[in-house]
Parts: sequence; C-alpha cells; structure tokens
Amino acid sequence: MWKPNKPCQLNREFDVDNREKPIGVFDSGIGGLTVLKEIINELPYENTVYLGDTARVPYGIRSPETVIRYSFENTTFLYSKDIKLLVVACNTASSVSLDFIRKNISVPVIGVIEPGVKAAVRKTKNNKIGVIGTEATVKSNSYTNAIKNMDASIEVYSLSCPLFVPLVEEGWTEGEIVTSVAKKYLGGLKDMGIDTLILGCTHYPLLKTVLTEVIGGDVRLIDSAIETSRKVKMLLENLGLNRENNFVPRREFFVTDSPERFLKVGENFLGEKIEHIEKIAVSS
Amino acid sequence: MWKPNKPCQLNREFDVDNREKPIGVFDSGIGGLTVLKEIINELPYENTVYLGDTARVPYGIRSPETVIRYSFENTTFLYSKDIKLLVVACNTASSVSLDFIRKNISVPVIGVIEPGVKAAVRKTKNNKIGVIGTEATVKSNSYTNAIKNMDASIEVYSLSCPLFVPLVEEGWTEGEIVTSVAKKYLGGLKDMGIDTLILGCTHYPLLKTVLTEVIGGDVRLIDSAIETSRKVKMLLENLGLNRENNFVPRREFFVTDSPERFLKVGENFLGEKIEHIEKIAVSS
Repeated sequence: MWKPNKPCQLNREFDVDNREKPIGVFDSGIGGLTVLKEIINELPYENTVYLGDTARVPYGIRSPETVIRYSFENTTFLYSKDIKLLVVACNTASSVSLDFIRKNISVPVIGVIEPGVKAAVRKTKNNKIGVIGTEATVKSNSYTNAIKNMDASIEVYSLSCPLFVPLVEEGWTEGEIVTSVAKKYLGGLKDMGIDTLILGCTHYPLLKTVLTEVIGGDVRLIDSAIETSRKVKMLLENLGLNRENNFVPRREFFVTDSPERFLKVGENFLGEKIEHIEKIAVSS
Repeated sequence: MWKPNKPCQLNREFDVDNREKPIGVFDSGIGGLTVLKEIINELPYENTVYLGDTARVPYGIRSPETVIRYSFENTTFLYSKDIKLLVVACNTASSVSLDFIRKNISVPVIGVIEPGVKAAVRKTKNNKIGVIGTEATVKSNSYTNAIKNMDASIEVYSLSCPLFVPLVEEGWTEGEIVTSVAKKYLGGLKDMGIDTLILGCTHYPLLKTVLTEVIGGDVRLIDSAIETSRKVKMLLENLGLNRENNFVPRREFFVTDSPERFLKVGENFLGEKIEHIEKIAVSS
C-alpha cells in the first residue's frame, strides 16, 4: 500500500463559520464535470474549485494503489485552496480511495458511490440492481459491498463497459455504433431482470438516452451525479455551511495537462463555458 | 518546454563491442508489444527489455510537453539496463520526443515514424498517402512533415481514430461494431483516392483484417512495427552489434502500474507468454 512520503499535513481545525469557502471537486479528468454540473444546479451560488487530473486519466484501468496515490495528491492540492467540502467525483477514486482520504483530511468528504447506492436501494422493487462502470470500479466491488451492507437480500449484477468512456469523449453519444456497443454490453444484464441500473461512471449520464432505449424504459437509471449533488446540498445545510447570498459564484478549474482538450470536450459535459482554467503540476 | 531537473547523466561512451546487451523498447503501455513481436521475429536471439508506462497510458491525448517528460523518464530507466539500442515503440512519443531523446542519449535511437514513412513513400504509386493515428500523433504533423521532407509532391491525408485503441484493448478486433467504427472514420479517406495507408499507432496492426475490408484491398497498409523491426536489424548488423549465437534470449518486461492487466491483454499483442515482469516506480 502506498503511503504519503511526508507526514500528512492535512488535518487542521475545520472552520465552520466560513461559508464563502469553495466546494472542492476532483476527478480523473473531464467526467466529474457532470457531477459539478448537478452541484451547480442544486447550489447555484456556491464557489467551486475543480481539479481534473488529465495528465493521468483514466483511473479506471489503474491499480488501487496507484489510484489512491493520485487521489491523495489531488486532495492535497484542493485542500490548499481552502475548501469547505471535498467531492470525489470519480467513481474509481471513490471506490478505492475514499477511506484513505477521509482519514487524512478534516473537511467532509463525499464520494459518488454511496449517494447512488442509497437511491438505488430505495427505488428497487424486485431487489435486483445492475451496476455499470469502469474495470477498476467493478473489480473493487464497492457498489456490491455498499448495496449488500444496506440490504443483504438484494441481488447485484455488475459489469464493466470500457468503451463507453472513449465513445462519450469522442462525442458519439447517439446513433448506430453506440447503440450496438450498449446492446453488446447490456444484453446479459437485461436478461437478469434488473429493475434499477446504477450509472457507476461520471461519463455515463451523457448516454442516458441510448441506455434507456437499450435496457428498456421499465428499468430505472440512477444518475450518481444527481444523487451526489443532493447529498452535498443536504450536508452543507446541515452544517450551516451553505452560501445563501446571490453574489455571482467564483468557478475555478485546474488541470494537470494542457487545458486545450479539456476545454474542447469539457463544455459539453458542464453545459456552460469554462473560464479561469489553469494547468498545475502534479508529482508525475 | 519541460527540461530534466538534474543535468543529464545519460551521455557515456557507446561500447560497440558488447553484443550481449539488450535492445530496449518502450511504449506508453501495451501497444508497443506489436513492435517487440516483429523485432523478435526478425532477431530471435537478441536480448530485449521492454518498458510499458501503464500508469500513465495513453500518451495520445496528452500535451507534447507531458509526453516528452514521460518519454525521457522511460529512456532513463532503460538506459540503466545497459541497452545497446533504444526503440521508441510508441507513435505519439516518436512524434514529439525523438529529437529530445537523441540529444540526451548516446546509444542509437529508432522511432516508429520514419521506417513507416520510408516504406510508404517507396510504395505509393499515385502519390496519395493516408495516415491514421492518435489525436496527438496526427496533431503533431510528424508523419506529414516526414513524408513531405522525402517528397514534397506527395499528398498526405491524416486522421485521428481515438476509438481504435480502446476497441483493440477490449479485444473487439472483428465484427459489426469495429467495422462500423472503421467505416465512420475511414469513409472520407477512401474518397480521397489514397493507395497507401500508414497504420500510425501500434495498436492498429491488430485491426488489419477489418481495415483492409473497409478501405479496400487495393490500398496497401503499412505496418510500422514490421518496418521498424527491419530497421533495427539493419542497424545492428551495420554496427556489428547483432547477437548471432543461438542461446536462448533473455526477455524482461517492466511496467509502471500493476502487471495484471498488462499480462491479460499483452499476450494477445505479443503472441507469446510474458514472463519476468516487474513493476517499477516512475516519478509520478
């Protein structure tokens, strides 16, 4: 298991009075923008700072040890931006590194797994839930374990769909090819009779139309981005940390590779213009 | 432009007498194994050492600066293995970092661009050459520039095909989906009337059947892996560095992430069993 080289510097007193501090969001790259988008929908006045680790994307094919190391570096960077709450907007990172991050940072940390799981468990009627995600997410069994922890009687069918991410990044989110790919992946899952399907990767909400068409309208899709943003809102309100005034929020974006590609693809994900973007160096 | 932190330690006297030294090959990940496979075909008795930078794959979507940094780190590692020749078996790295590497290392360095270009220029009859590769390779204009340098009258049509790599890694190298993707990408190229097509990415040789079917049997496909291995053989012979005896060669493999996935997918690429594999740390 990888450990930070230096004794961890992150623990410090959590200042509950400062509502102006931004919400920190990190992802392995562009996908987390779907989560940020929903956070902005729920909490339009919050300041936000987003880090996309584009120099090391994708996390979904990497080992847990490597993902933990990358996640911790991202966390350290966002913590230096004086955030009031951290959202790990990457399913792979949430799957394998959330415990490690929580142990080493004193602000609240929200991952994208638990909110999706809670919604799915609440909504399934026949107790058969499907989960789709990257190779690493599926292999980690995080979704299965989290669902089973809530209700051991639920049957979970999980499946990795590695081509969905490159298809979305290519912008091929509808049409014959993506439909064929979805049919090939989801055929087996459909036969299992699931009534609820968790989209366990931040890219997948962009495929909702095709997925609904292929898996059938009677299967309920759970969008982790929406569920996560609701949890962020609830938690900030509970902590009295939500920013209530109507001032224009500050949106900062950081990437670890040059911003060009992020800007080109990212605005589709976010649904608005990206300004104030900067490249930062990570240890790699 | 990124520069190595330390003064470069790589230049040293090139020992022309040692035929036992291995050929070093690096790639961003698994793809370079198609190049290693052809080198082994051409030179079965050579010792080889392969580095797949699986913790930072894919290079094709990264900025030139980042690719140069990664390439130099890979070079430094292989140089520490006392190689007699370096093959940069990644098109993206060959496109953007070959000059930088050559300036900083005293053993001969062979990339995958030039051998493919020479073969294509030799073989085209109508002076219309197509090139397919990753986004970074195409954007770098390396193929176009290299072809134009050899013969300015040749028309070059280059095109990035980002979905080919994930398709190959998923093992979907034939069938309806990959054929549809190939048709979508290559339609325009076909209309240009090219008679020669360079496969400018190490993954693409695994798609030869589909590509021939889609682009038509009258278009000659240039496999850079084969052309590169011929150049390696020729250069070693010219330098009197080829290993002639019939001892069993030593094959070493190194990766920067855990070897599991590399082993699973890699053996398809290499066409033989991978033994002696080890994970090493890069700076990231």
